[in-house]
Amino acid sequence: MRQEIPQCQSLADDLDVLFTLLEDEPSLRNRTDTVAVRTALRKIMDPRFEIVFAGAFSAGKSMLINALLGRELLYSAEGHATGTECYIAYPEAGQGEQVVLTFLSKTEVQEQAIVLSQRLGVQTEFRLNNPDSLALMKEWCSKIIKEEGGESKSERAKQANALKLLLEGYEQNSDRIADDRNAVYSMEQFNFQNLREAASYARRGSNSAVLKRIEYYCEHPLLEDGNVIIDLPGIDAPVKRDAELTYRKIEDPDTSAVVCVLKAASAGEMTSEETHLLELTQENSGIRDRVFFVFNRIDETWYNNQLRQRLDNLVQNQFYTTSRLYKTSALLGFYGTQILETSGNDRFGLDSIFADSIKGLDGVEESPQFVNEFNRYCANSGKLAPNRFRVSVNSYETPNENYVRILSEQGKPLIEQLIYDSGIQGFHSAIRHYLAEEKWPELYRNLAEDLMPICISLEECYLHRWRELDNQPTEVSSMKAKELERLNQDLQKIGQELRQYIATEINTIVTNNDREFDADFKQLTARMVSRLDELLKTFSVVDAYSQSP
Amino acid sequence: MRQEIPQCQSLADDLDVLFTLLEDEPSLRNRTDTVAVRTALRKIMDPRFEIVFAGAFSAGKSMLINALLGRELLYSAEGHATGTECYIAYPEAGQGEQVVLTFLSKTEVQEQAIVLSQRLGVQTEFRLNNPDSLALMKEWCSKIIKEEGGESKSERAKQANALKLLLEGYEQNSDRIADDRNAVYSMEQFNFQNLREAASYARRGSNSAVLKRIEYYCEHPLLEDGNVIIDLPGIDAPVKRDAELTYRKIEDPDTSAVVCVLKAASAGEMTSEETHLLELTQENSGIRDRVFFVFNRIDETWYNNQLRQRLDNLVQNQFYTTSRLYKTSALLGFYGTQILETSGNDRFGLDSIFADSIKGLDGVEESPQFVNEFNRYCANSGKLAPNRFRVSVNSYETPNENYVRILSEQGKPLIEQLIYDSGIQGFHSAIRHYLAEEKWPELYRNLAEDLMPICISLEECYLHRWRELDNQPTEVSSMKAKELERLNQDLQKIGQELRQYIATEINTIVTNNDREFDADFKQLTARMVSRLDELLKTFSVVDAYSQSP
Repeated sequence: MRQEIPQCQSLADDLDVLFTLLEDEPSLRNRTDTVAVRTALRKIMDPRFEIVFAGAFSAGKSMLINALLGRELLYSAEGHATGTECYIAYPEAGQGEQVVLTFLSKTEVQEQAIVLSQRLGVQTEFRLNNPDSLALMKEWCSKIIKEEGGESKSERAKQANALKLLLEGYEQNSDRIADDRNAVYSMEQFNFQNLREAASYARRGSNSAVLKRIEYYCEHPLLEDGNVIIDLPGIDAPVKRDAELTYRKIEDPDTSAVVCVLKAASAGEMTSEETHLLELTQENSGIRDRVFFVFNRIDETWYNNQLRQRLDNLVQNQFYTTSRLYKTSALLGFYGTQILETSGNDRFGLDSIFADSIKGLDGVEESPQFVNEFNRYCANSGKLAPNRFRVSVNSYETPNENYVRILSEQGKPLIEQLIYDSGIQGFHSAIRHYLAEEKWPELYRNLAEDLMPICISLEECYLHRWRELDNQPTEVSSMKAKELERLNQDLQKIGQELRQYIATEINTIVTNNDREFDADFKQLTARMVSRLDELLKTFSVVDAYSQSP
Repeated sequence: MRQEIPQCQSLADDLDVLFTLLEDEPSLRNRTDTVAVRTALRKIMDPRFEIVFAGAFSAGKSMLINALLGRELLYSAEGHATGTECYIAYPEAGQGEQVVLTFLSKTEVQEQAIVLSQRLGVQTEFRLNNPDSLALMKEWCSKIIKEEGGESKSERAKQANALKLLLEGYEQNSDRIADDRNAVYSMEQFNFQNLREAASYARRGSNSAVLKRIEYYCEHPLLEDGNVIIDLPGIDAPVKRDAELTYRKIEDPDTSAVVCVLKAASAGEMTSEETHLLELTQENSGIRDRVFFVFNRIDETWYNNQLRQRLDNLVQNQFYTTSRLYKTSALLGFYGTQILETSGNDRFGLDSIFADSIKGLDGVEESPQFVNEFNRYCANSGKLAPNRFRVSVNSYETPNENYVRILSEQGKPLIEQLIYDSGIQGFHSAIRHYLAEEKWPELYRNLAEDLMPICISLEECYLHRWRELDNQPTEVSSMKAKELERLNQDLQKIGQELRQYIATEINTIVTNNDREFDADFKQLTARMVSRLDELLKTFSVVDAYSQSP
């Protein structure tokens, strides 16, 4: 948790003066890049800390967020989401859990529709508020999709489908869409009882086509202290524009950390899109090394040695520099945690958690994906020590029957083993630990690191000027001396404040988190403080010189 | 099998005369497109029938080819193959099974190296025959890969890795690479004992980087009669140039049929690359509707209702027009067929077929992927009728132990059920039936269809001219009449030959394949013959007219 320190209030002002001094120094103005420092400062001043989850649709991004928060907030049942951004944050004091839906403006819908229809080669000017023109356009989209043989048969069919969904979304929500602004609605205005109902509305293709953004306000400890989890379209989204939205957010300086959800555990290697994601992540100075790599669907490697070897190679050869690497099965971890509270009475969740998903069309009970993966885990993973568990999966029982029987026989120890093997706890505690213990010290350390070269440059610059002055004839004009004196008093003040601020800051952190601070950091901060001392000394010398007759 | 008909010999000459007549007719020259007819003709004249297998790397293309041929010819264990094309054809008479390796020329290696190094921003001119320069370049590639943190961490690292493999491949094979031509070697020149050894050489990254093409000559009935199976780089290959090679081959008029191996069964939807593949396939007039859609890894849908529903939707909405759609598990089908001949003595293949792949590094036996999938099939697929099979997969046995016990208990009926469920037999017999029974009639039908509009145009053109002549004063010059007479005699001859040829051809086909010919085709050919008769009649009228005084 962030330490509220009085000096923090003036930190921004202090650094502003420093920036002005740099600006005033022609020799430094172009040589010193203050963008990084300003970004590092903004990260400290703004309590909002945006954590973007990025990856391919099929990597299981949404399920990983569900597993992290321990509740089913995001759904992916209808395939690729469209270009809607999803923000999950802690509610404002006294507000309670909430969903806020932000719609595209009518102008934006119109613009998108025109771009899409131009790509499809329609020249006609059509207007959203002309129902005939709208109906004609929709019909025409359906015709194209039919001609092409289906919505994913060609790029043209995809574009037509996107336009069709956009127009349907506009029709269905036209009373909620404002002309020139992004209309915002709370879930009460939609009569949604809970987050789940809101999510289910938003995931319908036509609705999500006209939704710019969904904000979930959710009372989860991980989200306290300004942490915001952001779920964005998959980097392999079928419509390029949607994938671009994700890449732009990765480049955004407001993004503070990225969780890269990678599918190499199931695919055996990195995709082109994933490589591109890693490149962009590296280039953003707002993210630095706040990147978490999650190889999800790790269970695939339990059943396939080739996949396991390929993943091992990948990790050894290409991810050896990072300690923030996690192997998870979000599906097993999430539902494993959910069924901990169930029992034989509700058939271990089949009649509660999974009640909706097991309803088959013809009265035959379906098996949830989790049940299938649970049975596979029991029979084939080799994770169950023979001296602790003796489980059989029988071909003559349905997956649901196997599931209920095995859990009746084995109970909680098996579920706990499953959760352990899912790796979700490890990922969860790493994220929790990072956000609670490491985040703020790291942000301050980043600022200190970025300030260092600027302080050194300033020091060198003033030393250089002092030497020049020293070499000049002593009859320096008293006017000049006066100016120098004033300047140096300013510098003294700033330098001392800065030194005091950082020293206090570091002490506070060290006191609170002694475990966290390694020798490297102590050495760095010590060097930093001593540099500042030298800087102050230099100022004094110049000061002394300018005051001398 | 193709019917050798004497008239076939003169078919090309006859059509050439027809083309010349078209050329000579200014009003038709630009209006009539003979490209399609010429392509259709070439498909008939050239016994070579190229079947391209195209799809994503992870769709299981190579395993599907193995399953189709019933032998392990292609490997994919080392991840993505590079840009090597792989041709599988029947050996020439008396040649026996063979592998022929075609290398890039030195000039080609040099060109590729220069393109790659320019992309990496190296300005230095380096030459392949300078060992120092080569070593320096390789070192520099390794440095880039290290800097970027691994070969798939950035586009730059990928390019550096491609260059490194190319240079290593050149070094290791420099005595085999010729300056300005593509050197060709048989497997004896490499001392390979069999196809398998040759394949294992070719799949090493550095070797495949300098290999332009591999040709397997394999005595398999499917390959008789000029059929060639072509395996190309995955359309999702990490290096764009490799994927482009596949797309170019799909556009090539020499390609006669395409097997699209799609991964929607495991991914839940079509990828952008797959959509692009379908688009290109449709645009090639050499392929027409000779496209086979294979949804491989169908077993994934047995364990995941969502995947099953998505695939059903995709097939219903977007593939309802095709009858050439197959759902397969190439892995289960291929190895299922292989273990039919095994027994408890070699632990149902663990000590024979899988002997190499179960050797673990630390003496612990590994489980082949097939064994894991076999156990999953037994425990969780719901495919085994309870009244026929009672199988249990036990957590306290290793996957290999489960596998051997289950097969000892159940024997061949279980393997046969597995092969049936893999869908491989259905795919195999469809391809076999197509190549043996449908291919030639279809190629002739295509030619007839394409000739139709040309014949009609010619007919209309001469009718038009006849009417013009009829309207002219009767004192037409005898010179003109003579010329017309000669021209029409030519036409008569060609028309009669063509009529006779097509009639014979169709009779032969109908006699041999009565089952195959539906009413539509009969109607079409009847219409074709009657059109030709009319054409001949028209000629006669013109002829009679020109001979009249």
